[in-house]
Amino acid sequence: MTTDPHVPHFQEELDQLKTRLLTMGGLAEDRVRIAVLALVEGDHAAVERVLTGDEAINQLHIEIDDRCVKLLALHQPMAVDLRAIVSAVKINSDLERVGDLAVNIAEAASRYFTHPPVKPLIDIPRMALIAQEMLHDALDAYVRRDVSTASGVLDRDDELDALKTLVFKELLGYMQRDKATVAASLDLILISRHLERIGDHATNIAEDVIFMVSARDVRHKLEE
Amino acid sequence: MTTDPHVPHFQEELDQLKTRLLTMGGLAEDRVRIAVLALVEGDHAAVERVLTGDEAINQLHIEIDDRCVKLLALHQPMAVDLRAIVSAVKINSDLERVGDLAVNIAEAASRYFTHPPVKPLIDIPRMALIAQEMLHDALDAYVRRDVSTASGVLDRDDELDALKTLVFKELLGYMQRDKATVAASLDLILISRHLERIGDHATNIAEDVIFMVSARDVRHKLEE
Repeated sequence: MTTDPHVPHFQEELDQLKTRLLTMGGLAEDRVRIAVLALVEGDHAAVERVLTGDEAINQLHIEIDDRCVKLLALHQPMAVDLRAIVSAVKINSDLERVGDLAVNIAEAASRYFTHPPVKPLIDIPRMALIAQEMLHDALDAYVRRDVSTASGVLDRDDELDALKTLVFKELLGYMQRDKATVAASLDLILISRHLERIGDHATNIAEDVIFMVSARDVRHKLEE
Repeated sequence: MTTDPHVPHFQEELDQLKTRLLTMGGLAEDRVRIAVLALVEGDHAAVERVLTGDEAINQLHIEIDDRCVKLLALHQPMAVDLRAIVSAVKINSDLERVGDLAVNIAEAASRYFTHPPVKPLIDIPRMALIAQEMLHDALDAYVRRDVSTASGVLDRDDELDALKTLVFKELLGYMQRDKATVAASLDLILISRHLERIGDHATNIAEDVIFMVSARDVRHKLEE
């Protein structure tokens, strides 16, 4: 490790990186929460805020990548610290896409408002809750380098997938019985897919945490 | 740079990394091509092959990440070489997800075969072709460090988005006119979304190439 006084302490910089990732995660979570709440409450103004308000996440996305490259260039991190920075690059991409998915949910919600509504929103609010919890737990696991919390996230992905399949079948039934529900049901199906993908991103983050801490690659092992 | 004879030459290792990324890209492209062709030709056996054959991509995904971490740990790459490795980490994730999307397309195709077909497949084969070309060009731009080819990929994303919107409207029309087409049309809508996401991954790769070569971050600038 360098002793050049102009190079800030590595550990301090690494802590700052974690803090910024958590900030980004918080923003992404918030936007998903607001988009789904806006859908549930028919709140057009809130939908509009999600559609136009991704500047902060986009700025953080660039800043965090930049911090990672600088940390790698200025220091020579090894072992778990090196893996923590490589993981941060990937987690950063995942969070940025969660932010994009909040926009996709808001776009579908905005279309949904223009159709006669499908009576309940079925399990969509529950899917949103699970996806948000997974994301929150995955980031918590990253910061605390906690493999057990990360493994818990992987377990919940099946729950989310099962709900997505249930929502799909139920809405397909509506559409086939009554043509008037087609457009609205289609938007809800797309929203449930977006929520499932948020769960996928949380799963990616959890897998990165396990790799970071244990240098063990669990990806693709669980699928078999 | 180290002169330890036990550490292989950096440039050689970096070239191997590029070759492996290209192999992974080729596999991902192939699987998308086969999935869409199987849909068009009603080829159940080919769909089945896509559903079960993602082992090679998954193995490469792990291997490439491992190569990136080792390159960072054993050498002290700077400037464009450092950015090339950080980009490889991201491109690797993008390609793995393209492979997953090929599976998603095959899943939808497999469901599609069980319904009375919607008469033409509309612009879906064309969307598939554009998405594959974008992916191919983006990887080519990575290997040749070619900003102009990368910029061309970014331009084509709008074309793909426009086709997706067209496909959506046309299929929504079918569904609203004739309930018997609901299930099949829904599968085609989902497939068009998967193809759009493949274009998004190609776009991510192209943006990484521009960042790598010019250290200029074009992401989020183009959206404004």
